[in-house]
Amino acid sequence: MKLIRFGEPGNESPGLQLDDGRLVDTSSVVNDYDEEFFASGGLGKLQDWLSANAENAEQVSADHRIGSPIARPSKMICIGLNFSDHAAETGAETPKEPVIFSKATSALNGPFDNIVIPKGSEQTDWEVELAVVISKHASYVSESEAENYIAGYVLHNDVSERSFQIDRGGQWTKGKSADTFAPMGPFMATKDEIPNSDNLGMWLTVNGEKMQDGNTSNLIFNVPHVVSYLSHFMSLLPGDVISTGTPAGVGMGMSPERYLKPGDIVELGIDGLGSSKQNVVAYGS
Amino acid sequence: MKLIRFGEPGNESPGLQLDDGRLVDTSSVVNDYDEEFFASGGLGKLQDWLSANAENAEQVSADHRIGSPIARPSKMICIGLNFSDHAAETGAETPKEPVIFSKATSALNGPFDNIVIPKGSEQTDWEVELAVVISKHASYVSESEAENYIAGYVLHNDVSERSFQIDRGGQWTKGKSADTFAPMGPFMATKDEIPNSDNLGMWLTVNGEKMQDGNTSNLIFNVPHVVSYLSHFMSLLPGDVISTGTPAGVGMGMSPERYLKPGDIVELGIDGLGSSKQNVVAYGS
Repeated sequence: MKLIRFGEPGNESPGLQLDDGRLVDTSSVVNDYDEEFFASGGLGKLQDWLSANAENAEQVSADHRIGSPIARPSKMICIGLNFSDHAAETGAETPKEPVIFSKATSALNGPFDNIVIPKGSEQTDWEVELAVVISKHASYVSESEAENYIAGYVLHNDVSERSFQIDRGGQWTKGKSADTFAPMGPFMATKDEIPNSDNLGMWLTVNGEKMQDGNTSNLIFNVPHVVSYLSHFMSLLPGDVISTGTPAGVGMGMSPERYLKPGDIVELGIDGLGSSKQNVVAYGS
Repeated sequence: MKLIRFGEPGNESPGLQLDDGRLVDTSSVVNDYDEEFFASGGLGKLQDWLSANAENAEQVSADHRIGSPIARPSKMICIGLNFSDHAAETGAETPKEPVIFSKATSALNGPFDNIVIPKGSEQTDWEVELAVVISKHASYVSESEAENYIAGYVLHNDVSERSFQIDRGGQWTKGKSADTFAPMGPFMATKDEIPNSDNLGMWLTVNGEKMQDGNTSNLIFNVPHVVSYLSHFMSLLPGDVISTGTPAGVGMGMSPERYLKPGDIVELGIDGLGSSKQNVVAYGS
Protein backbone atom coordinates (compact mmCIF):
# COMPACT_ATOMS: atom_id res chain seq x y z
CA MET A 1 0.00 0.00 0.00
CA LYS A 2 0.94 3.63 -0.47
CA LEU A 3 -0.22 5.77 2.44
CA ILE A 4 -0.92 9.46 1.85
CA ARG A 5 -2.31 12.32 3.89
CA PHE A 6 -4.19 15.25 2.38
CA GLY A 7 -5.65 18.54 3.55
CA GLU A 8 -4.42 21.69 5.22
CA PRO A 9 -1.21 21.68 7.32
CA GLY A 10 -1.90 20.32 10.79
CA ASN A 11 -5.35 19.11 9.74
CA GLU A 12 -4.56 16.33 7.25
CA SER A 13 -6.81 13.31 6.61
CA PRO A 14 -5.49 9.83 5.84
CA GLY A 15 -5.78 8.24 2.43
CA LEU A 16 -4.20 5.79 0.01
CA GLN A 17 -2.68 6.07 -3.44
CA LEU A 18 -3.98 3.03 -5.32
CA ASP A 19 -2.07 1.10 -7.97
CA ASP A 20 -4.22 2.69 -10.68
CA GLY A 21 -3.18 6.14 -9.47
CA ARG A 22 -6.45 7.04 -7.75
CA LEU A 23 -6.16 8.79 -4.38
CA VAL A 24 -8.83 7.59 -1.94
CA ASP A 25 -9.98 8.80 1.45
CA THR A 26 -9.53 6.35 4.35
CA SER A 27 -10.70 8.62 7.16
CA SER A 28 -13.79 6.45 7.63
CA VAL A 29 -11.60 3.53 8.69
CA VAL A 30 -8.58 5.11 10.45
CA ASN A 31 -8.06 8.37 12.33
CA ASP A 32 -4.55 9.16 11.20
CA TYR A 33 -1.21 7.51 10.40
CA ASP A 34 0.27 8.13 13.83
CA GLU A 35 1.83 6.25 16.73
CA GLU A 36 -1.50 4.76 17.81
CA PHE A 37 -2.25 3.61 14.23
CA PHE A 38 1.02 1.71 13.85
CA ALA A 39 0.95 0.39 17.43
CA SER A 40 -2.55 -1.04 17.12
CA GLY A 41 -2.09 -2.99 13.89
CA GLY A 42 -3.60 -0.25 11.76
CA LEU A 43 -1.78 -1.39 8.63
CA GLY A 44 -3.52 -4.77 8.72
CA LYS A 45 -6.89 -3.15 9.31
CA LEU A 46 -6.26 -0.80 6.39
CA GLN A 47 -5.29 -3.70 4.11
CA ASP A 48 -8.49 -5.56 5.00
CA TRP A 49 -10.56 -2.47 4.32
CA LEU A 50 -8.79 -1.89 1.00
CA SER A 51 -9.40 -5.45 -0.17
CA ALA A 52 -13.12 -5.00 0.38
CA ASN A 53 -13.54 -1.37 -0.69
CA ALA A 54 -10.98 -0.45 -3.34
CA GLU A 55 -13.58 -0.31 -6.10
CA ASN A 56 -15.94 2.22 -4.61
CA ALA A 57 -13.75 4.11 -2.15
CA GLU A 58 -14.32 7.84 -2.01
CA GLN A 59 -11.77 9.71 -4.12
CA VAL A 60 -9.71 12.63 -2.91
CA SER A 61 -10.35 15.68 -5.05
CA ALA A 62 -7.37 16.77 -7.10
CA ASP A 63 -7.15 20.25 -5.57
CA HIS A 64 -6.26 19.00 -2.10
CA ARG A 65 -2.79 19.70 -0.74
CA ILE A 66 -0.74 16.56 -0.11
CA GLY A 67 0.84 16.53 3.36
CA SER A 68 3.47 14.35 4.96
CA PRO A 69 2.20 10.76 4.59
CA ILE A 70 2.69 10.15 8.30
CA ALA A 71 1.64 12.25 11.25
CA ARG A 72 4.26 14.00 13.39
CA PRO A 73 6.26 11.16 14.97
CA SER A 74 7.67 10.99 18.49
CA LYS A 75 11.12 11.46 16.97
CA MET A 76 13.07 11.77 13.75
CA ILE A 77 16.60 10.39 13.92
CA CYS A 78 19.00 10.87 11.03
CA ILE A 79 22.19 9.03 10.15
CA GLY A 80 25.07 11.32 9.22
CA LEU A 81 27.85 10.65 6.71
CA ASN A 82 26.38 7.29 5.71
CA PHE A 83 27.69 7.38 2.13
CA SER A 84 31.48 7.38 1.78
CA ASP A 85 31.33 9.74 -1.22
CA HIS A 86 29.32 12.25 0.83
CA ALA A 87 31.65 11.91 3.83
CA ALA A 88 34.57 12.61 1.49
CA GLU A 89 32.97 15.69 -0.10
CA THR A 90 32.39 17.25 3.33
CA GLY A 91 35.97 16.54 4.40
CA ALA A 92 34.86 14.07 7.10
CA GLU A 93 36.33 10.64 7.69
CA THR A 94 34.25 7.58 6.93
CA PRO A 95 32.55 6.81 10.25
CA LYS A 96 33.38 3.57 12.07
CA GLU A 97 29.87 3.33 13.48
CA PRO A 98 26.72 5.28 12.63
CA VAL A 99 26.74 8.99 13.39
CA ILE A 100 23.28 9.94 14.62
CA PHE A 101 21.55 13.24 15.15
CA SER A 102 17.97 14.33 15.59
CA LYS A 103 15.72 16.66 13.67
CA ALA A 104 12.91 18.50 15.45
CA THR A 105 9.61 16.93 14.41
CA SER A 106 8.20 20.45 14.04
CA ALA A 107 10.23 20.58 10.79
CA LEU A 108 7.93 18.00 9.15
CA ASN A 109 6.36 19.24 5.94
CA GLY A 110 4.46 18.11 2.86
CA PRO A 111 6.35 16.89 -0.22
CA PHE A 112 5.21 19.81 -2.40
CA ASP A 113 5.26 22.56 0.23
CA ASN A 114 7.74 25.42 0.12
CA ILE A 115 11.13 25.23 1.78
CA VAL A 116 11.43 28.44 3.82
CA ILE A 117 14.98 29.77 4.20
CA PRO A 118 15.33 30.70 7.89
CA LYS A 119 16.09 34.26 8.98
CA GLY A 120 19.83 34.90 8.74
CA SER A 121 20.52 31.76 6.71
CA GLU A 122 23.04 31.86 3.89
CA GLN A 123 23.75 28.12 3.63
CA THR A 124 20.49 26.21 3.23
CA ASP A 125 21.33 22.90 1.55
CA TRP A 126 19.53 19.79 0.22
CA GLU A 127 19.89 16.06 1.00
CA VAL A 128 17.83 13.32 -0.68
CA GLU A 129 17.37 10.46 1.81
CA LEU A 130 15.61 7.15 2.25
CA ALA A 131 13.60 7.30 5.48
CA VAL A 132 12.30 4.29 7.39
CA VAL A 133 9.09 4.26 9.44
CA ILE A 134 9.06 2.05 12.55
CA SER A 135 6.11 -0.29 13.08
CA LYS A 136 6.43 -1.27 16.74
CA HIS A 137 8.41 -0.59 19.90
CA ALA A 138 12.05 -1.50 19.24
CA SER A 139 14.66 -1.88 21.98
CA TYR A 140 17.86 -3.93 21.65
CA VAL A 141 16.75 -5.41 18.33
CA SER A 142 19.27 -7.56 16.46
CA GLU A 143 20.16 -6.82 12.85
CA SER A 144 18.53 -10.06 11.70
CA GLU A 145 15.25 -9.12 13.40
CA ALA A 146 15.26 -5.46 12.34
CA GLU A 147 13.05 -6.02 9.29
CA ASN A 148 10.20 -7.03 11.62
CA TYR A 149 10.18 -3.53 13.10
CA ILE A 150 9.80 -1.65 9.81
CA ALA A 151 6.39 -0.42 8.64
CA GLY A 152 7.58 1.10 5.40
CA TYR A 153 9.70 3.63 3.55
CA VAL A 154 9.36 7.25 2.53
CA LEU A 155 11.25 9.85 0.51
CA HIS A 156 12.76 12.63 2.64
CA ASN A 157 14.66 15.83 1.88
CA ASP A 158 16.86 16.35 4.95
CA VAL A 159 17.16 20.11 4.45
CA SER A 160 20.16 21.46 6.35
CA GLU A 161 21.53 24.88 7.21
CA ARG A 162 25.30 24.29 7.14
CA SER A 163 26.36 27.36 9.06
CA PHE A 164 23.81 26.70 11.82
CA GLN A 165 24.90 23.03 11.79
CA ILE A 166 28.65 23.51 11.88
CA ASP A 167 29.65 27.07 12.82
CA ARG A 168 27.24 27.81 15.65
CA GLY A 169 28.60 25.90 18.59
CA GLY A 170 28.30 22.18 18.16
CA GLN A 171 25.64 19.50 17.68
CA TRP A 172 24.07 19.30 14.25
CA THR A 173 20.43 19.45 15.39
CA LYS A 174 20.79 23.25 15.31
CA GLY A 175 21.04 23.23 11.53
CA LYS A 176 18.49 20.50 10.85
CA SER A 177 15.38 21.62 12.67
CA ALA A 178 13.95 24.78 11.10
CA ASP A 179 10.30 24.74 10.09
CA THR A 180 9.82 23.18 6.60
CA PHE A 181 13.22 21.41 6.76
CA ALA A 182 11.70 17.90 6.50
CA PRO A 183 9.63 17.55 3.31
CA MET A 184 8.35 13.96 3.54
CA GLY A 185 6.56 11.92 0.91
CA PRO A 186 4.60 11.90 -1.43
CA PHE A 187 3.61 8.56 0.15
CA MET A 188 4.80 5.96 2.63
CA ALA A 189 5.26 2.64 0.81
CA THR A 190 4.60 -0.33 3.04
CA LYS A 191 7.52 -2.73 3.42
CA ASP A 192 6.11 -5.26 0.94
CA GLU A 193 6.37 -2.68 -1.84
CA ILE A 194 10.14 -2.31 -1.36
CA PRO A 195 11.49 -5.87 -1.31
CA ASN A 196 15.13 -4.73 -1.32
CA SER A 197 16.01 -1.48 0.43
CA ASP A 198 19.67 -2.08 -0.46
CA ASN A 199 19.32 -1.25 -4.13
CA LEU A 200 17.27 1.90 -4.65
CA GLY A 201 18.33 4.64 -7.01
CA MET A 202 18.00 8.14 -5.57
CA TRP A 203 18.39 11.55 -7.19
CA LEU A 204 17.91 15.26 -6.60
CA THR A 205 17.87 18.24 -8.95
CA VAL A 206 17.96 21.99 -8.38
CA ASN A 207 16.31 24.00 -11.16
CA GLY A 208 16.45 20.87 -13.29
CA GLU A 209 20.19 20.35 -12.88
CA LYS A 210 21.15 16.94 -11.47
CA MET A 211 22.92 17.40 -8.14
CA GLN A 212 22.64 14.00 -6.46
CA ASP A 213 22.58 10.64 -8.21
CA GLY A 214 23.13 7.77 -5.80
CA ASN A 215 21.96 4.33 -4.79
CA THR A 216 21.27 2.84 -1.38
CA SER A 217 23.64 0.01 -2.35
CA ASN A 218 26.38 2.46 -1.33
CA LEU A 219 25.11 3.01 2.20
CA ILE A 220 27.93 2.33 4.65
CA PHE A 221 25.42 1.09 7.24
CA ASN A 222 22.30 -0.35 5.65
CA VAL A 223 18.72 -0.20 6.89
CA PRO A 224 18.71 -3.29 9.17
CA HIS A 225 22.03 -2.18 10.65
CA VAL A 226 20.86 1.33 11.53
CA VAL A 227 17.53 0.15 12.98
CA SER A 228 19.33 -2.38 15.16
CA TYR A 229 22.09 0.06 16.12
CA LEU A 230 19.73 2.88 17.11
CA SER A 231 17.60 0.53 19.19
CA HIS A 232 20.63 -0.03 21.46
CA PHE A 233 20.74 3.65 22.39
CA MET A 234 17.03 4.49 22.68
CA SER A 235 13.60 2.95 22.29
CA LEU A 236 12.15 3.43 18.82
CA LEU A 237 8.38 3.92 18.94
CA PRO A 238 5.69 3.06 16.36
CA GLY A 239 5.67 5.74 13.68
CA ASP A 240 9.19 6.99 14.47
CA VAL A 241 11.26 8.01 11.44
CA ILE A 242 14.88 7.12 10.74
CA SER A 243 16.46 8.95 7.81
CA THR A 244 19.38 6.91 6.55
CA GLY A 245 21.75 9.45 5.04
CA THR A 246 22.51 11.23 1.79
CA PRO A 247 24.88 10.47 -1.09
CA ALA A 248 27.37 12.93 -2.60
CA GLY A 249 26.20 16.04 -4.38
CA VAL A 250 25.10 18.44 -1.66
CA GLY A 251 25.78 22.15 -2.02
CA MET A 252 28.41 22.27 0.71
CA GLY A 253 30.47 19.69 -1.19
CA MET A 254 30.73 21.82 -4.33
CA SER A 255 33.55 24.12 -5.29
CA PRO A 256 32.53 26.84 -4.89
CA GLU A 257 29.84 25.89 -2.38
CA ARG A 258 26.33 26.41 -3.66
CA TYR A 259 23.24 26.99 -1.52
CA LEU A 260 19.52 27.42 -2.04
CA LYS A 261 18.07 30.86 -2.72
CA PRO A 262 14.50 32.10 -3.10
CA GLY A 263 13.05 31.03 -6.43
CA ASP A 264 15.03 27.78 -6.65
CA ILE A 265 13.10 24.58 -7.30
CA VAL A 266 14.25 21.32 -5.70
CA GLU A 267 13.01 17.98 -7.04
CA LEU A 268 13.97 14.57 -5.69
CA GLY A 269 13.01 10.93 -5.91
CA ILE A 270 13.81 7.36 -4.89
CA ASP A 271 12.94 4.19 -6.81
CA GLY A 272 9.53 2.97 -5.67
CA LEU A 273 8.91 5.98 -3.44
CA GLY A 274 7.84 8.57 -5.99
CA SER A 275 9.14 12.11 -6.28
CA SER A 276 8.63 15.42 -4.53
CA LYS A 277 9.14 19.05 -5.45
CA GLN A 278 9.73 22.10 -3.29
CA ASN A 279 9.88 25.77 -4.16
CA VAL A 280 12.38 27.73 -2.10
CA VAL A 281 11.16 30.97 -0.55
CA ALA A 282 12.52 33.57 1.87
CA TYR A 283 11.18 33.74 5.43
CA GLY A 284 8.11 35.97 5.59
CA SER A 285 7.57 36.07 1.83
CA MET B 1 0.03 25.73 40.88
CA LYS B 2 2.03 22.54 41.10
CA LEU B 3 1.03 20.08 38.38
CA ILE B 4 1.51 16.38 39.01
CA ARG B 5 0.64 13.18 37.17
CA PHE B 6 -0.02 9.88 38.92
CA GLY B 7 -0.67 6.28 37.94
CA GLU B 8 1.10 3.57 35.99
CA PRO B 9 3.73 4.43 33.35
CA GLY B 10 2.06 5.43 30.10
CA ASN B 11 -1.32 5.65 31.79
CA GLU B 12 -0.93 8.60 34.15
CA SER B 13 -3.79 10.87 35.26
CA PRO B 14 -3.40 14.60 35.89
CA GLY B 15 -3.50 16.12 39.34
CA LEU B 16 -2.29 18.99 41.49
CA GLN B 17 -0.17 19.25 44.59
CA LEU B 18 -1.92 21.85 46.78
CA ASP B 19 -0.20 24.31 49.09
CA ASP B 20 -1.27 22.26 52.10
CA GLY B 21 0.46 19.20 50.63
CA ARG B 22 -2.66 17.34 49.49
CA LEU B 23 -2.50 15.68 46.07
CA VAL B 24 -5.79 16.01 44.19
CA ASP B 25 -7.15 14.43 41.03
CA THR B 26 -7.94 16.83 38.17
CA SER B 27 -8.90 14.26 35.56
CA SER B 28 -12.51 15.44 35.71
CA VAL B 29 -11.48 18.83 34.34
CA VAL B 30 -8.50 18.15 32.03
CA ASN B 31 -7.41 15.11 30.01
CA ASP B 32 -3.67 15.38 30.47
CA TYR B 33 -0.86 17.93 30.69
CA ASP B 34 0.10 17.68 27.05
CA GLU B 35 0.51 19.85 23.97
CA GLU B 36 -3.24 20.29 23.55
CA PHE B 37 -3.63 21.27 27.22
CA PHE B 38 -1.03 24.02 27.06
CA ALA B 39 -2.11 25.18 23.58
CA SER B 40 -5.76 25.57 24.56
CA GLY B 41 -5.29 27.64 27.70
CA GLY B 42 -5.56 24.65 30.00
CA LEU B 43 -3.61 26.34 32.77
CA GLY B 44 -6.22 29.08 33.09
CA LYS B 45 -9.04 26.57 33.10
CA LEU B 46 -7.26 24.56 35.77
CA GLN B 47 -6.75 27.68 37.91
CA ASP B 48 -10.45 28.52 37.66
CA TRP B 49 -11.41 24.98 38.63
CA LEU B 50 -8.99 25.03 41.55
CA SER B 51 -10.36 28.30 42.91
CA ALA B 52 -13.84 26.79 43.03
CA ASN B 53 -13.01 23.23 44.06
CA ALA B 54 -9.86 23.16 46.19
CA GLU B 55 -11.79 22.37 49.36
CA ASN B 56 -13.53 19.22 48.25
CA ALA B 57 -11.38 17.96 45.38
CA GLU B 58 -10.89 14.20 45.25
CA GLN B 59 -7.58 13.21 46.82
CA VAL B 60 -5.01 10.96 45.18
CA SER B 61 -4.36 7.91 47.32
CA ALA B 62 -0.87 7.76 48.76
CA ASP B 63 0.04 4.46 47.14
CA HIS B 64 -0.10 5.82 43.59
CA ARG B 65 3.13 6.08 41.62
CA ILE B 66 4.04 9.67 40.72
CA GLY B 67 4.92 10.04 37.03
CA SER B 68 6.49 12.83 35.02
CA PRO B 69 4.33 15.92 35.71
CA ILE B 70 3.97 16.56 32.00
CA ALA B 71 3.03 14.16 29.22
CA ARG B 72 5.60 13.18 26.60
CA PRO B 73 6.38 16.43 24.77
CA SER B 74 7.05 16.89 21.05
CA LYS B 75 10.69 17.48 21.92
CA MET B 76 13.20 17.83 24.72
CA ILE B 77 16.11 20.14 23.96
CA CYS B 78 19.02 20.44 26.35
CA ILE B 79 21.65 23.13 26.68
CA GLY B 80 25.17 21.79 27.02
CA LEU B 81 28.05 23.28 29.01
CA ASN B 82 25.91 26.12 30.37
CA PHE B 83 27.80 26.50 33.65
CA SER B 84 31.42 27.58 33.29
CA ASP B 85 32.51 25.36 36.22
CA HIS B 86 30.94 22.33 34.50
CA ALA B 87 32.51 23.22 31.14
CA ALA B 88 35.88 23.45 32.89
CA GLU B 89 35.54 20.09 34.66
CA THR B 90 34.80 18.36 31.35
CA GLY B 91 37.77 20.02 29.68
CA ALA B 92 35.56 22.00 27.30
CA GLU B 93 35.87 25.68 26.52
CA THR B 94 33.17 28.04 27.73
CA PRO B 95 30.76 28.20 24.80
CA LYS B 96 30.31 31.49 22.94
CA GLU B 97 26.67 30.68 22.19
CA PRO B 98 24.40 27.95 23.56
CA VAL B 99 25.34 24.38 22.70
CA ILE B 100 22.13 22.45 22.08
CA PHE B 101 21.34 18.78 21.78
CA SER B 102 18.21 16.72 21.96
CA LYS B 103 17.10 13.89 24.21
CA ALA B 104 14.66 11.26 22.90
CA THR B 105 11.30 11.87 24.54
CA SER B 106 11.03 8.10 25.08
CA ALA B 107 13.57 8.64 27.89
CA LEU B 108 10.96 10.50 29.99
CA ASN B 109 10.42 8.95 33.42
CA GLY B 110 8.86 9.58 36.80
CA PRO B 111 10.84 11.36 39.54
CA PHE B 112 10.98 8.29 41.81
CA ASP B 113 11.34 5.60 39.12
CA ASN B 114 14.51 3.58 38.72
CA ILE B 115 17.36 4.68 36.48
CA VAL B 116 18.18 1.65 34.34
CA ILE B 117 21.83 1.37 33.30
CA PRO B 118 21.78 0.48 29.58
CA LYS B 119 23.32 -2.73 28.27
CA GLY B 120 27.05 -2.28 27.81
CA SER B 121 27.18 0.96 29.77
CA GLU B 122 30.07 1.68 32.10
CA GLN B 123 29.73 5.45 32.32
CA THR B 124 26.18 6.37 33.36
CA ASP B 125 26.34 9.82 34.95
CA TRP B 126 24.00 12.33 36.66
CA GLU B 127 23.12 15.98 35.93
CA VAL B 128 20.72 18.06 38.01
CA GLU B 129 19.03 20.61 35.73
CA LEU B 130 16.35 23.27 35.70
CA ALA B 131 13.92 22.46 32.87
CA VAL B 132 11.49 24.93 31.32
CA VAL B 133 8.10 23.99 29.87
CA ILE B 134 6.88 26.02 26.87
CA SER B 135 3.33 27.40 26.95
CA LYS B 136 2.69 28.35 23.30
CA HIS B 137 4.18 28.17 19.83
CA ALA B 138 7.47 30.10 19.86
CA SER B 139 9.33 31.13 16.72
CA TYR B 140 11.82 34.01 16.50
CA VAL B 141 10.95 35.21 20.00
CA SER B 142 13.05 38.04 21.45
CA GLU B 143 14.73 37.68 24.83
CA SER B 144 12.48 40.36 26.33
CA GLU B 145 9.36 38.47 25.22
CA ALA B 146 10.59 34.99 26.17
CA GLU B 147 8.91 34.99 29.58
CA ASN B 148 5.51 35.06 27.83
CA TYR B 149 6.23 31.66 26.28
CA ILE B 150 7.01 29.84 29.54
CA ALA B 151 4.36 27.71 31.26
CA GLY B 152 6.51 26.68 34.19
CA TYR B 153 9.55 24.93 35.58
CA VAL B 154 10.43 21.39 36.54
CA LEU B 155 13.32 19.48 38.12
CA HIS B 156 15.15 17.20 35.68
CA ASN B 157 17.98 14.69 36.00
CA ASP B 158 19.65 14.74 32.57
CA VAL B 159 21.09 11.24 32.92
CA SER B 160 23.97 10.75 30.47
CA GLU B 161 26.09 7.83 29.28
CA ARG B 162 29.47 9.46 28.70
CA SER B 163 31.00 6.79 26.53
CA PHE B 164 27.91 6.64 24.29
CA GLN B 165 27.90 10.44 24.23
CA ILE B 166 31.55 11.06 23.47
CA ASP B 167 33.35 7.92 22.25
CA ARG B 168 30.77 6.44 19.89
CA GLY B 169 30.97 8.59 16.80
CA GLY B 170 29.72 12.08 17.40
CA GLN B 171 26.56 13.89 18.40
CA TRP B 172 25.61 13.73 22.05
CA THR B 173 22.03 12.52 21.59
CA LYS B 174 23.45 8.98 21.49
CA GLY B 175 24.36 9.15 25.17
CA LYS B 176 21.31 11.07 26.37
CA SER B 177 18.37 9.06 25.11
CA ALA B 178 18.21 5.66 26.83
CA ASP B 179 14.94 4.70 28.48
CA THR B 180 14.67 6.14 32.04
CA PHE B 181 17.34 8.80 31.31
CA ALA B 182 14.96 11.73 31.93
CA PRO B 183 13.49 11.57 35.45
CA MET B 184 11.22 14.64 35.56
CA GLY B 185 9.42 16.14 38.51
CA PRO B 186 7.98 15.67 41.17
CA PHE B 187 5.83 18.56 39.88
CA MET B 188 5.77 21.34 37.31
CA ALA B 189 5.58 24.67 39.08
CA THR B 190 3.71 27.29 37.10
CA LYS B 191 5.70 30.41 36.26
CA ASP B 192 4.10 32.50 39.02
CA GLU B 193 5.59 30.16 41.64
CA ILE B 194 9.15 30.87 40.46
CA PRO B 195 9.40 34.66 40.28
CA ASN B 196 13.16 34.62 39.61
CA SER B 197 14.60 31.70 37.63
CA ASP B 198 18.04 33.34 37.87
CA ASN B 199 18.61 32.54 41.54
CA LEU B 200 17.66 28.96 42.32
CA GLY B 201 19.86 26.69 44.39
CA MET B 202 20.27 23.19 42.92
CA TRP B 203 21.90 20.08 44.38
CA LEU B 204 22.41 16.38 43.77
CA THR B 205 23.64 13.59 46.03
CA VAL B 206 24.69 9.99 45.34
CA ASN B 207 24.19 7.68 48.31
CA GLY B 208 23.83 10.78 50.48
CA GLU B 209 27.12 12.33 49.41
CA LYS B 210 26.80 15.83 47.95
CA MET B 211 28.01 15.81 44.34
CA GLN B 212 26.48 18.94 42.83
CA ASP B 213 25.77 22.17 44.64
CA GLY B 214 25.04 25.02 42.25
CA ASN B 215 22.80 27.96 41.55
CA THR B 216 21.10 29.12 38.37
CA SER B 217 22.70 32.52 38.98
CA ASN B 218 25.79 30.92 37.42
CA LEU B 219 24.11 29.95 34.15
CA ILE B 220 26.14 31.32 31.25
CA PHE B 221 22.95 31.73 29.19
CA ASN B 222 19.89 32.28 31.35
CA VAL B 223 16.34 31.08 30.76
CA PRO B 224 15.04 33.98 28.62
CA HIS B 225 18.21 33.82 26.53
CA VAL B 226 17.96 30.09 25.77
CA VAL B 227 14.22 30.23 24.99
CA SER B 228 14.81 33.12 22.58
CA TYR B 229 17.92 31.53 21.08
CA LEU B 230 16.33 28.15 20.45
CA SER B 231 13.28 29.74 18.86
CA HIS B 232 15.58 31.08 16.11
CA PHE B 233 16.55 27.54 15.07
CA MET B 234 13.24 25.68 15.41
CA SER B 235 9.65 26.18 16.46
CA LEU B 236 9.04 25.41 20.12
CA LEU B 237 5.61 23.88 20.67
CA PRO B 238 3.30 24.00 23.71
CA GLY B 239 4.53 21.48 26.28
CA ASP B 240 8.06 21.27 24.83
CA VAL B 241 10.84 20.97 27.40
CA ILE B 242 14.12 22.88 27.48
CA SER B 243 16.65 21.64 30.02
CA THR B 244 19.04 24.45 30.79
CA GLY B 245 22.28 22.72 31.78
CA THR B 246 24.07 21.34 34.80
CA PRO B 247 26.62 22.82 37.23
CA ALA B 248 29.92 21.21 38.20
CA GLY B 249 30.02 17.93 40.09
CA VAL B 250 29.19 15.25 37.53
CA GLY B 251 30.94 11.90 37.66
CA MET B 252 32.98 12.48 34.52
CA GLY B 253 34.50 15.58 36.07
CA MET B 254 35.93 13.69 39.07
CA SER B 255 39.41 12.31 39.45
CA PRO B 256 39.16 9.39 39.17
CA GLU B 257 35.91 9.48 37.20
CA ARG B 258 32.95 8.01 39.07
CA TYR B 259 29.86 6.52 37.52
CA LEU B 260 26.57 5.05 38.69
CA LYS B 261 26.30 1.37 39.54
CA PRO B 262 23.36 -0.82 40.51
CA GLY B 263 22.29 -0.11 44.07
CA ASP B 264 23.25 3.56 44.01
CA ILE B 265 20.65 6.11 45.08
CA VAL B 266 20.52 9.52 43.40
CA GLU B 267 18.64 12.40 45.02
CA LEU B 268 18.35 15.90 43.61
CA GLY B 269 16.44 19.12 44.08
CA ILE B 270 16.00 22.74 43.04
CA ASP B 271 14.62 25.58 45.17
CA GLY B 272 10.85 25.75 44.71
CA LEU B 273 10.73 22.62 42.53
CA GLY B 274 10.91 19.91 45.18
CA SER B 275 13.21 16.91 45.13
CA SER B 276 13.35 13.54 43.41
CA LYS B 277 15.02 10.23 44.14
CA GLN B 278 16.05 7.41 41.80
CA ASN B 279 17.39 3.96 42.54
CA VAL B 280 19.94 2.74 40.01
CA VAL B 281 19.43 -0.76 38.61
CA ALA B 282 21.03 -2.93 35.94
CA TYR B 283 19.18 -3.56 32.67
CA GLY B 284 16.88 -6.57 33.00
CA SER B 285 17.10 -6.71 36.79
